[in-house]
Amino acid sequence: MTPSEFRKLVRSGEFMGQTSGVCPGYAQTNLVILPSQYAYDFLLYSQRNPYAIPLLEVTDEGERRLSIIADADVTSDYPMYRVYIEGELVSEKSDIGDIWCRDFVSFHIGCSFSFESALIEAGVPVRNIEENRNVPMFDTNIPCRPAGIFRGNMVVSMRPIPHALVPRAVAITAQMPRVHGAPIHIGDPSIIGIKDLTQPDYGEAVTINPGEVPVFWPCGVTPQNAVRNAKPEICITHSPGHMLVTDITNASLRM
Amino acid sequence: MTPSEFRKLVRSGEFMGQTSGVCPGYAQTNLVILPSQYAYDFLLYSQRNPYAIPLLEVTDEGERRLSIIADADVTSDYPMYRVYIEGELVSEKSDIGDIWCRDFVSFHIGCSFSFESALIEAGVPVRNIEENRNVPMFDTNIPCRPAGIFRGNMVVSMRPIPHALVPRAVAITAQMPRVHGAPIHIGDPSIIGIKDLTQPDYGEAVTINPGEVPVFWPCGVTPQNAVRNAKPEICITHSPGHMLVTDITNASLRM
Repeated sequence: MTPSEFRKLVRSGEFMGQTSGVCPGYAQTNLVILPSQYAYDFLLYSQRNPYAIPLLEVTDEGERRLSIIADADVTSDYPMYRVYIEGELVSEKSDIGDIWCRDFVSFHIGCSFSFESALIEAGVPVRNIEENRNVPMFDTNIPCRPAGIFRGNMVVSMRPIPHALVPRAVAITAQMPRVHGAPIHIGDPSIIGIKDLTQPDYGEAVTINPGEVPVFWPCGVTPQNAVRNAKPEICITHSPGHMLVTDITNASLRM
Repeated sequence: MTPSEFRKLVRSGEFMGQTSGVCPGYAQTNLVILPSQYAYDFLLYSQRNPYAIPLLEVTDEGERRLSIIADADVTSDYPMYRVYIEGELVSEKSDIGDIWCRDFVSFHIGCSFSFESALIEAGVPVRNIEENRNVPMFDTNIPCRPAGIFRGNMVVSMRPIPHALVPRAVAITAQMPRVHGAPIHIGDPSIIGIKDLTQPDYGEAVTINPGEVPVFWPCGVTPQNAVRNAKPEICITHSPGHMLVTDITNASLRM
């Protein structure tokens, strides 16, 4: 299925699931939508935390259509959205056309799913795809650089990698800084403030086999922590794991 | 000399020259200062044109001190500044403390000088350093993606490279996207709208020997074109070639 065909399924409400493994080779994105009065602070927050929040497209104020990474509609082409009111998650829905406002700005953030196909091609197993689960994501004790009203710790995604393949996984993902780049941490989860790998804060737990090392990458869910702290009157994000599938290839993001 | 020692010379007015080749191994930056009302448009312009305008630090409104890339003062630590009033260049000066305003935001942009030491280490000659001249820079016909009030064509820097070393020069600079990355064009200058390599629009011409190919990289002077078009009431930039020498190493910018 092409990304365009897949987005049609999403737009019509036929697909509302998580997108790990969908349309291999094509980049996927995380989403943050904010009223324009907060857009500068958020843009600066992403500039100061480029590995957690690598922006692939920012739309003009009020513009629902994307023009750079996909011919897509921001209100319907993510499979699932989260609506935050004053920092509180109040609902999840598959279409936000009814609550779109003319002062909204949308931020589309590179996603680690983009490098999963590069890992698989290189013979590095990706457990969440093997087990058909959403990738496990965790809050950490790693502070982001604050900007304006936004501050908070980094969220990471975790993939267990056979120890002999860890260097290869680092080398491959380091080539792709626009989709989070190299891992932020390798090994002992307690060092970055994670207590229990079987209890992710977002997504689903995956099996860790003997001889595998947990490897952690900066995650595009990081802004959702900042939004909970900043409590803007409204913010809409994607639902973790439920990404936009774009028209740009992962290979093109290597430079 | 350390970057800190060099900046002291600049701050005291003892050094007002161009900085190509200064403190090898340390990153240098281009500068744009704008009133805060234009800061969002400029931040978005840089996000949409990341190879021409790779931001290494953006200061908070009114803040004169940098905190990420150097312990430096934005008003005194560049060797030479240009002041634009409504898009017209009205003066050059070595210190802007007297015209600094509390609503100013400063943008510090990665510079191709940063990859020159990586090229030299790899045996690729850098003619502007050999001849102790400012690098030649040219206006092109390559449009940047517009954002808000900012639009314009890309400015490029040119280095003549022996044809057998061109692939190496591309490979090395491609690893450094935060200082403009790979070339935007290799060879025939007319394809990107450059008529005469002996007449640069900024900087100084350098010798091109037989068997050498002109290689063009996106340049941090690009925003100065956009400022001339947008005509904000005031904008301050560095003078082309007269950069801030930072405390971060070029090697650290490889990821």
